[in-house]
Amino acid sequence: MNFEEFKNCGLRRSLDMISGKWKPLILFYLFQKKEVRFAELWRIIPRVSKKVLSEQLKQLEEDHIIQRVEVYNFPPEVYYHLTDNALKLGPILEALDAWGNNSRSLVS
Amino acid sequence: MNFEEFKNCGLRRSLDMISGKWKPLILFYLFQKKEVRFAELWRIIPRVSKKVLSEQLKQLEEDHIIQRVEVYNFPPEVYYHLTDNALKLGPILEALDAWGNNSRSLVS
Repeated sequence: MNFEEFKNCGLRRSLDMISGKWKPLILFYLFQKKEVRFAELWRIIPRVSKKVLSEQLKQLEEDHIIQRVEVYNFPPEVYYHLTDNALKLGPILEALDAWGNNSRSLVS
Repeated sequence: MNFEEFKNCGLRRSLDMISGKWKPLILFYLFQKKEVRFAELWRIIPRVSKKVLSEQLKQLEEDHIIQRVEVYNFPPEVYYHLTDNALKLGPILEALDAWGNNSRSLVS
């Protein structure tokens, strides 16, 4: 595989989609909680600005990983949940998590 | 999971280890070729400086993902191959690659 092929390969694409600064945490949280509100995410991530968090969520939404749902209550509510495509990532992220935990013992 | 737990979780750790600028390409190449010489990598990655490529390889080596082998020929040769721990990543990266390729059809 040369560089041009690599730029378009699925691995690169997947890693670009899931490894933004806060994206793994957002995904981890969503896999546990099924759905999450903006304010809830903003509270658990220390020192993240609302602008940066919004951008991360927007990118995940554009990549069809999460879906944004608006509920027209008063006050209006916005929450996010994983798409069907993202749910397929579950076992892969679990495997990566296990590999990362296992690697810890190799690196002091 | 709160932020402190997340900082130390396996997923975060794995993604940090494999998603540097050139790391996915280096890994992809090593999974295909089994071993690779520095000059060979440097040739296939456009516009990467030797300094940056060395740093990426050094980090992969420190994380026990690749092993650096020096052969004392004249001229001396340096090549890299995957560790046993990295080989376990193979099926996971393949799954990520497939997921990334599959996701392409969802995002125009």
